[in-house]
Amino acid sequence: NDLDTNRPPAEVRQKIGDEYSAEHLLRWSQPPRTVLIVKKPNDERTRAAFLEIVRWLRSEYPYMNIVVEPAVAEELGEEVSGLHVISKDNMVEYSRTIDFAITLGGDGTILHASSLFPRAVPPIISFSLGTLGFLLPFGFQDYQTALIKVIEGSVPLLLRMRLTCAIFRNDGRRVMYDGLDQDLQAMNDITLHRGHNPHLTVIDCSVGGEFLTDAVADGLIVSTPTGSTAYSLSAGGPIVHPAVQSLLLTPICPRSLSFRPALLPPYLTVRLRLSKNSRGTAQVSVDGRDVYLLGKEEYVEVRMSQFPIPCVSRTRHGKDWVRDINQTLKWNQSFTNRHGDGDSEPW
Amino acid sequence: NDLDTNRPPAEVRQKIGDEYSAEHLLRWSQPPRTVLIVKKPNDERTRAAFLEIVRWLRSEYPYMNIVVEPAVAEELGEEVSGLHVISKDNMVEYSRTIDFAITLGGDGTILHASSLFPRAVPPIISFSLGTLGFLLPFGFQDYQTALIKVIEGSVPLLLRMRLTCAIFRNDGRRVMYDGLDQDLQAMNDITLHRGHNPHLTVIDCSVGGEFLTDAVADGLIVSTPTGSTAYSLSAGGPIVHPAVQSLLLTPICPRSLSFRPALLPPYLTVRLRLSKNSRGTAQVSVDGRDVYLLGKEEYVEVRMSQFPIPCVSRTRHGKDWVRDINQTLKWNQSFTNRHGDGDSEPW
Amino acid sequence: NDLDTNRPPAEVRQKIGDEYSAEHLLRWSQPPRTVLIVKKPNDERTRAAFLEIVRWLRSEYPYMNIVVEPAVAEELGEEVSGLHVISKDNMVEYSRTIDFAITLGGDGTILHASSLFPRAVPPIISFSLGTLGFLLPFGFQDYQTALIKVIEGSVPLLLRMRLTCAIFRNDGRRVMYDGLDQDLQAMNDITLHRGHNPHLTVIDCSVGGEFLTDAVADGLIVSTPTGSTAYSLSAGGPIVHPAVQSLLLTPICPRSLSFRPALLPPYLTVRLRLSKNSRGTAQVSVDGRDVYLLGKEEYVEVRMSQFPIPCVSRTRHGKDWVRDINQTLKWNQSFTNRHGDGDSEPW
Amino acid sequence: NDLDTNRPPAEVRQKIGDEYSAEHLLRWSQPPRTVLIVKKPNDERTRAAFLEIVRWLRSEYPYMNIVVEPAVAEELGEEVSGLHVISKDNMVEYSRTIDFAITLGGDGTILHASSLFPRAVPPIISFSLGTLGFLLPFGFQDYQTALIKVIEGSVPLLLRMRLTCAIFRNDGRRVMYDGLDQDLQAMNDITLHRGHNPHLTVIDCSVGGEFLTDAVADGLIVSTPTGSTAYSLSAGGPIVHPAVQSLLLTPICPRSLSFRPALLPPYLTVRLRLSKNSRGTAQVSVDGRDVYLLGKEEYVEVRMSQFPIPCVSRTRHGKDWVRDINQTLKWNQSFTNRHGDGDSEPW
Ligand SMILES: NC(=O)C1=CN([C@@H]2O[C@H](COP(=O)(O)OP(=O)(O)OC[C@H]3O[C@@H](n4cnc5c(N)ncnc54)[C@H](O)[C@@H]3O)[C@@H](O)[C@H]2O)C=CC1
Ligand SMILES: NC(=O)C1=CN([C@@H]2O[C@H](COP(=O)(O)OP(=O)(O)OC[C@H]3O[C@@H](n4cnc5c(N)ncnc54)[C@H](O)[C@@H]3O)[C@@H](O)[C@H]2O)C=CC1
Ligand SMILES: NC(=O)C1=CN([C@@H]2O[C@H](COP(=O)(O)OP(=O)(O)OC[C@H]3O[C@@H](n4cnc5c(N)ncnc54)[C@H](O)[C@@H]3O)[C@@H](O)[C@H]2O)C=CC1
Ligand SMILES: NC(=O)C1=CN([C@@H]2O[C@H](COP(=O)(O)OP(=O)(O)OC[C@H]3O[C@@H](n4cnc5c(N)ncnc54)[C@H](O)[C@@H]3O)[C@@H](O)[C@H]2O)C=CC1
Repeated sequence: NDLDTNRPPAEVRQKIGDEYSAEHLLRWSQPPRTVLIVKKPNDERTRAAFLEIVRWLRSEYPYMNIVVEPAVAEELGEEVSGLHVISKDNMVEYSRTIDFAITLGGDGTILHASSLFPRAVPPIISFSLGTLGFLLPFGFQDYQTALIKVIEGSVPLLLRMRLTCAIFRNDGRRVMYDGLDQDLQAMNDITLHRGHNPHLTVIDCSVGGEFLTDAVADGLIVSTPTGSTAYSLSAGGPIVHPAVQSLLLTPICPRSLSFRPALLPPYLTVRLRLSKNSRGTAQVSVDGRDVYLLGKEEYVEVRMSQFPIPCVSRTRHGKDWVRDINQTLKWNQSFTNRHGDGDSEPW
Repeated sequence: NDLDTNRPPAEVRQKIGDEYSAEHLLRWSQPPRTVLIVKKPNDERTRAAFLEIVRWLRSEYPYMNIVVEPAVAEELGEEVSGLHVISKDNMVEYSRTIDFAITLGGDGTILHASSLFPRAVPPIISFSLGTLGFLLPFGFQDYQTALIKVIEGSVPLLLRMRLTCAIFRNDGRRVMYDGLDQDLQAMNDITLHRGHNPHLTVIDCSVGGEFLTDAVADGLIVSTPTGSTAYSLSAGGPIVHPAVQSLLLTPICPRSLSFRPALLPPYLTVRLRLSKNSRGTAQVSVDGRDVYLLGKEEYVEVRMSQFPIPCVSRTRHGKDWVRDINQTLKWNQSFTNRHGDGDSEPW
Repeated sequence: NDLDTNRPPAEVRQKIGDEYSAEHLLRWSQPPRTVLIVKKPNDERTRAAFLEIVRWLRSEYPYMNIVVEPAVAEELGEEVSGLHVISKDNMVEYSRTIDFAITLGGDGTILHASSLFPRAVPPIISFSLGTLGFLLPFGFQDYQTALIKVIEGSVPLLLRMRLTCAIFRNDGRRVMYDGLDQDLQAMNDITLHRGHNPHLTVIDCSVGGEFLTDAVADGLIVSTPTGSTAYSLSAGGPIVHPAVQSLLLTPICPRSLSFRPALLPPYLTVRLRLSKNSRGTAQVSVDGRDVYLLGKEEYVEVRMSQFPIPCVSRTRHGKDWVRDINQTLKWNQSFTNRHGDGDSEPW
Repeated sequence: NDLDTNRPPAEVRQKIGDEYSAEHLLRWSQPPRTVLIVKKPNDERTRAAFLEIVRWLRSEYPYMNIVVEPAVAEELGEEVSGLHVISKDNMVEYSRTIDFAITLGGDGTILHASSLFPRAVPPIISFSLGTLGFLLPFGFQDYQTALIKVIEGSVPLLLRMRLTCAIFRNDGRRVMYDGLDQDLQAMNDITLHRGHNPHLTVIDCSVGGEFLTDAVADGLIVSTPTGSTAYSLSAGGPIVHPAVQSLLLTPICPRSLSFRPALLPPYLTVRLRLSKNSRGTAQVSVDGRDVYLLGKEEYVEVRMSQFPIPCVSRTRHGKDWVRDINQTLKWNQSFTNRHGDGDSEPW
């Protein structure tokens, strides 16, 4: 790798009990030198946006290193020269070199960006490109104003808590994932699901080493506050403000009338074990990516990560959140009148 | 009463197992002679609509008797002469004389119209006047076309099932309501609620003479399919198509994790008794009107009424219903993109 | 097949609007001659029960033909001689010859029995063998009394409504299932589910030929009243008494805050089409059996079947139902005191 | 007041972001000298327990001042002499003098004890007397062991967060409550409810000064984590572990399909204003006690209190909580088999 970095970027960490509203401010001690651009693959609109942003960065900040993933270099390397690439077997380079990251695409794109940083994550600014974006504070049309503020000014950061997940065989040995001796990091959620298995799974849950419950269900979600508006919401969970440090446990289609979602404190470790009574396996997913097929008595351990995602926000005090749950999720929409003036079809 | 009627109007009845989609057609053997107009009180817009409709009826159908409630005669009798009035102590006259009814107002207005007919109900056509109207298929602007079709042509009728409710003291004696020896009729629902009582009510429920459950709750709703989109919906109940003959039992804030709403068949009688363990009374409401304060061991009996409300519909096959749950209730609204073109505020 | 039947068994059919409480009574015009025994495979307890029941039937009703499925004949044919077998490619024989059926196992066993009868179903009596049984009114210990009543006396029948399901390609051609030119019959439910596909499915729903809604979700269930306590319940649906003729539509983990379950009348046909916007396929299951993988713009049509399952009941008036939802489902369990006398562990 | 106290008791306060698991330990620098006993009135069993505990305290800790409320002194003063009383118009004396408190009764009794301490609260140990007790870790039979540990040893304390609530007229003036110039403190919840008013309330909600939503509903609950298992649970809210610092907003029967409960961070102030469009008043309740009837445009402000309730726990690490949600609330009860051996009634 030909990347010239003069210093390690600051590491953003989070402890239990940290007050982590959107009050954090990003201010650079030295101007940022290296930016990672993560883009949704094979999408015309995103491709155009990528090309435009690279051109603009090159003209305004010619000294800035632009890093992309190998697949992006392949897709666009002929059109754009001088892109830096970090190879798959050298992922630590991401954490070591990137000063901040830009994502272009949908919510999935920022989830993917999160997956590139198994430890500390640099500030990330996310632009929406037309699709639903709960995690995307900025429309692409504003990219210049927004990037100037990120690079030169000071912007509010929302620290979005992540979860770490470790997978174990029934004898207690750790399962390596992608050859990595590292916990997986989730921005939204860790999910166990019966998948294509037609039968219910049985999952033994314990917290802090103590038996909590047996889930006989399609599956189970452990979600961050950020993930409360993702799968957990679909499964019936509450909406949790990103500043409420907690682990949200939501069952997926449980065979029980009384399995209400529960919020656990961030200092507890949740262990989910596929019961030996379960009729089939359970698929483990991290932010929607399948990572492992759990056999009987194998288990995952989930806990709060000390490495949050610092997301560049439009507003302070979490005002974006209020707007998002109202406008994007259509939370608490009231019933309104069908007959406005004249909108009724004649008989 | 000075009303000249030459024959009893047809009685619309409903039996258990009747197939009662919107397939019923209203066709007169003799033209209708007597119309009841029910209006929301003290509302400027409704008042204007009332005056306009009366003027129009008089010019188009001069032979038509126009009946109103005493309060309406008082409110508007000076402006409009020749209105017929049925007095409060002669309510049977409504069923005896009215050929069809018009309601002007909101959902509450048609509920009120229903309350005037303790037995068979004539066809009712309901016009919305600007407010939310789930039960109101017609906008006022269409009144002429609609009324001509009702009076001269043939229109689809949706038979909306009602409930009857009888109230009993702890010794089994019937409670008379308004001096009437008649069951109350509900178009939406019969509700028991703790009301201003700060403490939970305890209600013993039985169906068909057999113990069903004890509700420790704010209250309990027995609803018609029509009422499934009223209070029951707010309390978490499902949406029931008006053609599904059933009684919907929905708890209001129960002290239980497992009190799922339940649908009962129309041939069962539901008995709700205030338990002797209840710390307070329970308010009985019929379609939102308070009718009795239930003491310990007093009870109500609810069953399907044989007297449905024949509602004039815009469409056959219940197409209105599909439109209503989508447009009025905003059922299954999908999450949509916040960033349309240009709707994002610059930073 | 060596089965000697002198007459076709009576066909039990159901029409829309049929009043179908548990009021139906089974009475034979001629004594039943042929019984089908369906058993859960590879279960020690069921095997013993099967052997006992065959021995008893042979001694009490020596003229009775005992029919089993090929797999059962294989499993137990050496131990028991004289069992009649109906081969897989001659399934119509089931409907043609069986006078009544016995199931030994769990709820899955009666679902399996249902699948053997693509058209009219004979009366079925189901015995539970230790596992959860919502559809199983009888404990095995009572089998003699129960069978004597079925064969010689008169027993209440509960007609459990079924659904039919037909599958179509995007060009409208019917998909044959198992080479059968017959609709599939469901006693519980027809389900579309993303299965192992990590992405949400998009399903266009219409009823009676009219657009109803777009489900962006893990899946969608169309359930019978019987199935309301199966998958639909887990997904948040209401409990529906078996005598409420209706189709229950329940979403599985929808990306919407407002997708409340809905009950449709039995005369409507529900069409579920995999949208061309869906990112993946959808698995179609009938009573939990995977039957087809739906591609884009392929669809299923679900409607009420005219062939219900006549289930032998313990009680009339659906009393079993009240017991089942209370004892088996633990419906509306109240919160009770933790501290009985002395059950608190000392500190 | 004749109470002899040589020093102010330690004040337990809580800040936003405090890690407040059950890790706090109570250890006295000087032995406690003054105990408050709060008892449920007019209950035979509680009365006996009170007498027994007083007798025991007198013999074991003769120097201990025993304080009661005026009503208790009246009820039992003849039987027990030497009880200290704090009069209603001198409530600050409670905070000034009490070293620790004992409650005898149900959950309501500890809620009542909380209401006596408008500011800092001393450690409270709660004994259950036969009724449901989610907030009651100790059975009465263990009182001696438990009290010895509280007075002489060291016991785990669970700091249960409280809310403060201030009420304002439409012109912004504070409403005094009970003549007190003090915010109300809630251990469970602050509720607005339509009460005996038959019509829906309309409540404008804002958080941190920004519009959040309009609740058209029976009411609205702002609850502590402790209160998540009280009214909020009945209204459909999630279960929140007491160590998750947050404000839980749960609607009561909202006229909306999409009003999912939401968790807000502890640094936000929630303002609930009765809309001028509301058809009626709204009853404000604090922990179930009615405190004010809100008129149009009047409002309440709710925020996290700095004065938690230090509850003596049986176990560390919140193990009681796991037991309580399982045993008391019957969380996630699985469906079990009805037919045990022989429990089936013969036909
Ligand atoms: N039935 C459901 O709702 C399911 C949801 N998911 C969620 O999808 C996530 C993965 O997302 P994609 O890779 O984009 O998969 P995807 O393309 O299948 O999209 C999932 C949807 O969820 C949205 N989404 C993602 N994160 C969100 C958040 N934090 N708040 C609100 N909306 C959010 C996306 O915009 C998209 O509409 C998983 O972490 C899981 O939470 C996964 C499977 C089923
Ligand atoms: N929290 C709630 O949702 C409550 C609802 N109600 C309902 O209000 C009904 C009485 O209505 P009003 O006299 O107008 O009282 P209201 O003026 O208090 O209005 C109740 C609301 O429900 C709507 N509504 C009435 N019937 C409906 C139906 N069948 N489907 C959909 N929406 C419907 C009305 O348009 C209005 O928006 C009662 O039968 C009861 O069902 C009553 C109390 C509380
Ligand atoms: N998450 C869930 O709840 C899921 C439920 N299912 C249901 O399982 C059914 C197939 O059952 P099996 O072959 O036994 O599969 P299975 O062995 O996976 O068991 C499903 C469970 O549902 C119970 N069950 C089945 N029908 C029932 C009914 N009508 N009422 C109450 N409980 C019932 C069974 O006793 C068993 O406990 C499907 O029709 C579907 O409804 C299927 C997948 C997931
Ligand atoms: N529908 C409902 O569930 C209602 C609940 N309430 C709740 O009652 C509380 C007042 O309690 P009481 O004075 O005892 O009134 P109460 O005598 O009416 O009892 C309310 C019930 O809630 C239980 N409870 C109280 N706090 C609890 C908690 N934190 N967790 C679990 N259960 C709890 C009590 O043991 C009792 O069973 C209020 O703070 C409110 O939360 C008040 C009105 C209606």
